Amino acid sequence: MTVRMDQLSWVEYERRVREQSPVVFLPCGATEQHGPHLPLGTDALLASALCEDVARQVDGLVAPALSYGYKSQPKCGGGQHFCGTTSLDGQTLIALVRDAVREFARHGITRLVLVDGHYENQWFVTEGIQLALRELGPSSPLEVMRLEHWDFCSESTLSDVFPDGFPGFALEHAAVIETSLMLHYLPNLVSLDLIPDDGPADFPPYDMYPSRTAWVPPSGVLSSARGSSADKGLRMARDIVGGIADAVRKEFRL
Amino acid sequence: MTVRMDQLSWVEYERRVREQSPVVFLPCGATEQHGPHLPLGTDALLASALCEDVARQVDGLVAPALSYGYKSQPKCGGGQHFCGTTSLDGQTLIALVRDAVREFARHGITRLVLVDGHYENQWFVTEGIQLALRELGPSSPLEVMRLEHWDFCSESTLSDVFPDGFPGFALEHAAVIETSLMLHYLPNLVSLDLIPDDGPADFPPYDMYPSRTAWVPPSGVLSSARGSSADKGLRMARDIVGGIADAVRKEFRL
Amino acid sequence: MTVRMDQLSWVEYERRVREQSPVVFLPCGATEQHGPHLPLGTDALLASALCEDVARQVDGLVAPALSYGYKSQPKCGGGQHFCGTTSLDGQTLIALVRDAVREFARHGITRLVLVDGHYENQWFVTEGIQLALRELGPSSPLEVMRLEHWDFCSESTLSDVFPDGFPGFALEHAAVIETSLMLHYLPNLVSLDLIPDDGPADFPPYDMYPSRTAWVPPSGVLSSARGSSADKGLRMARDIVGGIADAVRKEFRL
Amino acid sequence: MTVRMDQLSWVEYERRVREQSPVVFLPCGATEQHGPHLPLGTDALLASALCEDVARQVDGLVAPALSYGYKSQPKCGGGQHFCGTTSLDGQTLIALVRDAVREFARHGITRLVLVDGHYENQWFVTEGIQLALRELGPSSPLEVMRLEHWDFCSESTLSDVFPDGFPGFALEHAAVIETSLMLHYLPNLVSLDLIPDDGPADFPPYDMYPSRTAWVPPSGVLSSARGSSADKGLRMARDIVGGIADAVRKEFRL
Amino acid sequence: MTVRMDQLSWVEYERRVREQSPVVFLPCGATEQHGPHLPLGTDALLASALCEDVARQVDGLVAPALSYGYKSQPKCGGGQHFCGTTSLDGQTLIALVRDAVREFARHGITRLVLVDGHYENQWFVTEGIQLALRELGPSSPLEVMRLEHWDFCSESTLSDVFPDGFPGFALEHAAVIETSLMLHYLPNLVSLDLIPDDGPADFPPYDMYPSRTAWVPPSGVLSSARGSSADKGLRMARDIVGGIADAVRKEFRL
Amino acid sequence: MTVRMDQLSWVEYERRVREQSPVVFLPCGATEQHGPHLPLGTDALLASALCEDVARQVDGLVAPALSYGYKSQPKCGGGQHFCGTTSLDGQTLIALVRDAVREFARHGITRLVLVDGHYENQWFVTEGIQLALRELGPSSPLEVMRLEHWDFCSESTLSDVFPDGFPGFALEHAAVIETSLMLHYLPNLVSLDLIPDDGPADFPPYDMYPSRTAWVPPSGVLSSARGSSADKGLRMARDIVGGIADAVRKEFRL
Repeated sequence: MTVRMDQLSWVEYERRVREQSPVVFLPCGATEQHGPHLPLGTDALLASALCEDVARQVDGLVAPALSYGYKSQPKCGGGQHFCGTTSLDGQTLIALVRDAVREFARHGITRLVLVDGHYENQWFVTEGIQLALRELGPSSPLEVMRLEHWDFCSESTLSDVFPDGFPGFALEHAAVIETSLMLHYLPNLVSLDLIPDDGPADFPPYDMYPSRTAWVPPSGVLSSARGSSADKGLRMARDIVGGIADAVRKEFRL
Repeated sequence: MTVRMDQLSWVEYERRVREQSPVVFLPCGATEQHGPHLPLGTDALLASALCEDVARQVDGLVAPALSYGYKSQPKCGGGQHFCGTTSLDGQTLIALVRDAVREFARHGITRLVLVDGHYENQWFVTEGIQLALRELGPSSPLEVMRLEHWDFCSESTLSDVFPDGFPGFALEHAAVIETSLMLHYLPNLVSLDLIPDDGPADFPPYDMYPSRTAWVPPSGVLSSARGSSADKGLRMARDIVGGIADAVRKEFRL
Repeated sequence: MTVRMDQLSWVEYERRVREQSPVVFLPCGATEQHGPHLPLGTDALLASALCEDVARQVDGLVAPALSYGYKSQPKCGGGQHFCGTTSLDGQTLIALVRDAVREFARHGITRLVLVDGHYENQWFVTEGIQLALRELGPSSPLEVMRLEHWDFCSESTLSDVFPDGFPGFALEHAAVIETSLMLHYLPNLVSLDLIPDDGPADFPPYDMYPSRTAWVPPSGVLSSARGSSADKGLRMARDIVGGIADAVRKEFRL
Repeated sequence: MTVRMDQLSWVEYERRVREQSPVVFLPCGATEQHGPHLPLGTDALLASALCEDVARQVDGLVAPALSYGYKSQPKCGGGQHFCGTTSLDGQTLIALVRDAVREFARHGITRLVLVDGHYENQWFVTEGIQLALRELGPSSPLEVMRLEHWDFCSESTLSDVFPDGFPGFALEHAAVIETSLMLHYLPNLVSLDLIPDDGPADFPPYDMYPSRTAWVPPSGVLSSARGSSADKGLRMARDIVGGIADAVRKEFRL
Repeated sequence: MTVRMDQLSWVEYERRVREQSPVVFLPCGATEQHGPHLPLGTDALLASALCEDVARQVDGLVAPALSYGYKSQPKCGGGQHFCGTTSLDGQTLIALVRDAVREFARHGITRLVLVDGHYENQWFVTEGIQLALRELGPSSPLEVMRLEHWDFCSESTLSDVFPDGFPGFALEHAAVIETSLMLHYLPNLVSLDLIPDDGPADFPPYDMYPSRTAWVPPSGVLSSARGSSADKGLRMARDIVGGIADAVRKEFRL
Repeated sequence: MTVRMDQLSWVEYERRVREQSPVVFLPCGATEQHGPHLPLGTDALLASALCEDVARQVDGLVAPALSYGYKSQPKCGGGQHFCGTTSLDGQTLIALVRDAVREFARHGITRLVLVDGHYENQWFVTEGIQLALRELGPSSPLEVMRLEHWDFCSESTLSDVFPDGFPGFALEHAAVIETSLMLHYLPNLVSLDLIPDDGPADFPPYDMYPSRTAWVPPSGVLSSARGSSADKGLRMARDIVGGIADAVRKEFRL
């Protein structure tokens, strides 16, 4: 039985909404460079795959991913100077999220989770949710959870995955976490032999605009993806999927 | 070799853009009721499948589909009262298209095709393209083609597919064309046994708002999908794919 | 007794709204090239004249026309490269319609008809209505009808007006329908001697941006206006006016 | 020979723009209560009539009026609580003006005059012009004049028209100036017998929102229209038309 | 005891709102040239100082000033060609005011006064208030006063301050009123020795865009500031502060 | 000699811009609850004070602060349910920043630093900068630095300031860092005796909307401010001011 909303007829979707009050997951991705070894769709593909795993655990549904996200920034996604990175203005993403949330409320959905797979999306997704809720008014029964999926990796997992120390999520772009999760979910789309040798990027505590492209490794990889493995991906996926499922059960009283 | 942009690394994408000046196809879909027998994602799924077939013929690339489209209208998509239909405001879709076109221009793409699979999207997609081109200015080398895929069905095909007469594209929502194309491309997502008996809807030459939901068959199917077949889908897909490929070769001088 | 709202004092308008609950008609026009023989104001002038005729039949009122419309497109209005065509961005037209609808609701109008005389306006007018109704909320008594006036020409009229076959509304820009209606309503503004010899334009099933101006006859006329006459105009006006009046009576229960 | 742009074909308009570099006048009106004796369209009707007179003097052209304006305010137009007053949001009017200016620049117009007939429009018209000019860039040859027409009444005329002292333009809503100008231009639309007895409104030096409707005479007339006459209208029209024509000749070097 | 909201803790602010229903004053300023003798912040500094004086009289509170305002115009602020003038688009200022008003309503504030110190702000502030009130709906208890502070100078004060005749508020930019008020409130920021000799600017009854910078004295002072004094400033401040306090007591029933 | 732009005349500002090409600092604050012991204006006051210290070191100028910021979030600022917190929509803040940056570019400023003192502002400030730079085009000489001031505290300072371990910037709302900096800069606005006993908030790795207000300590303080001191404030201010000054010198080649 599929959990993908786009594969269900409206009749089946409506029945499930009416009878089961399912949690709907909306993956928020991007089309963004992820180094020479990962595909441009990584953020949307991973967020979707993780959502599907969670949905199976909690009898939820997964809406079509937002495949385009906010502008890539040098210190977390490499920046807008990369060919292939295809980004939205902040206001566009805000409106996209607002409209989607408004529609799910119209369907009768009361439990919605926006699973962000692209660091730069966070605040625009937040604003979109808040604008929709303001419009829906205080009597709306809709509750929305918002999260970045990597925040559910446990500390013990991170210390095992990064035996030499975790460089922080900021540099984890196209690096060990994303590469390992892709090896777990979509190994055919990973080119292990193309992982670059770039050391971790070293960014100052400020941003410059126009972007200082020299700060970013030419590969677009902010810290090395070496050491990635499907096993690590599986372990992190378990943390993330289990963690989100637990959060959903708790907050939505399932 | 994949034609899907989201499965390519930026390095490979950049190489192809630089060396081959490929045509990029952007499928514009929707999440919209398509009767009890077709999935909510039909418009995006079909537009994407057709784009991939065309791209293979012309060495092009297919960008991630816009999975959400403009508000469904009673006379062409059933209307916004259906559960599951998940739509955007006009301004949101305009901005989404504008941003995407702007970004492809930054990549160095000079040949872009927006393939619309959702009737209601047309004018907002048009406006998005025009706003992007205004912003890019007259010296930009970008040329954009915009089309609805069904307009490439030949008259002879339509007369064969509809031996009792073609009811017109307006009523062809979740009906023989879309059902046959889905049977050709994604038969597992079609529930032939659930095709409703609804006769063709009979709409007056005006619209009413709030929508007169009684005008629309409760199933959401505007004319019967009976008689759909994978063979008919194949025949129409050949028309559409071949027609778009020819148009692309002609207009983009390939 | 005038039906034009702009010629009534507010005191008289208010009395009629309070006592008679009249239908208000809002003509949606454009300022757009209509060949060498018709004036730039054709769309607004015709929509206004037709609205006044309908209003007289149903004791309605006609609001000042929207004199500027959405951007002209090559395949239905010649395109934006013509001098004199003066168009609005989509978002501007959406907002204009939304604001006007909101205000009529405030007046206590419950029956509003937007009569579109410019093909390109359709979807932006639709969105403006929908945004206003969303804002007004489900308890508002306002009902809105939206239409393109030419859709009320009967098939028998069209077959008489076009003895060699009707080329379709798409090519009927500055052609027989509009020229005949202008000869009926405003003959002084028609220069019959300047009707060009251009044969019908032959457009492919796609659009190109920037517009391929070579597709469009230099005159701006998409199919010949030869054969236009005031008699044909009268006959079509009768269809349109009678048809809209009937629709209004039926839908607004007059 | 007409000066109304909407009555010219594009061919004739284009010829005049190319050969004569004419001044284009854009009347900016409103649909707003003007007491029991003047019609709702007064602002657009007067601005258009004055523009046509000026255009005849300087071989200019008059574009279709903006028939809807910014929200009526109690102290200059009576306020938004009157039935019949039909107003736009500020952003809508800004966009409308911006789009129109952008289009006249595309036509090759270099001399544009926005003639405001509705006090409340001023700043939104100003912003629309400035946004258009920013977009057109510093190399655009377009020059734009903006004015309120009543500011061209000379002091000697005002002292003759108001023998008991001029109450100021702020209170001149539906009062002697507008009534006299309407008696000059469109006497059939004036109901002299309905002029109310309301004395001049006495407003404090601040505004209150929601509007204090008790501040405004129930008739909507802010100071008495008694003493209005076609002769006074003629005299003021001469001042205004002559004054604008002189300004246009001076600033546009005609 | 401070009246400045930004110096209060939220706990103290909340207590006062709950117990005292205080009037909140929001100064609306600008960052704009004020000649060689007054600082760029004059409008925000004066509006804030006056608000604080009024607030002390009526036990009110003063919110942080809006330090940036609408674009300076030649005839009232010198224009946008001056270095240092730092202005907002109309839509930005509208949104800023709308958001602020919405938030004060959420706090439980029912008495809000927007004190404008920058002539060009007026209509955008007005629109912001109206948009917020529309959103809050008719059941909101919020009442908003809006004013320009100089309008509270009494005629007798003006005739004393300008023994040679009052040139009108329009030319009072960086002139006697503002300079005297600054000498009263913030004398250290006034450079009396730098007051220029420019005579009063003489503007025609229309505007030109792009701005005719030659119309504006190079100093940016529209009429002479000579004769300014702290005494005059004190006298005008008394009028303004007393007048606003009286208005507030009357309209808000204190 | 003042570094505050609002205290300079435009003549002096223009001279400095022309002769010295100074760095301009724009503090980005908020009006937001900061517990019972810190004032609502803390973010703008601190950002301004730090900017002034840096400006004195590098001969720069400080523009008037943005006193209102993006909506407070529970996990970093307590959330929007606090009385006194006065926030902007995302789009408003984006536009405010875009307009300001555009204006500084017009002045001839080529070195601009946006110093953010409110965590929630980050991405909207980023978008505002990027929109302005897009509009200014690639030939603009403007370079913009963007930063959160607390990121310049050195690790050694943090380990001294937090002998029991640094809880992370996320929880540092109205806590030791802000309280100590306020004790250093504006001790009169700190009520040390009102510091609450609340332990550190413990947030899950996701957000809920509508906000779960029970997650947030009723005081609004996210971790204890106990242990704050002016000495700690001085030490951190030295880090921050010195760090920003160094960054500015390096990136702007001073």
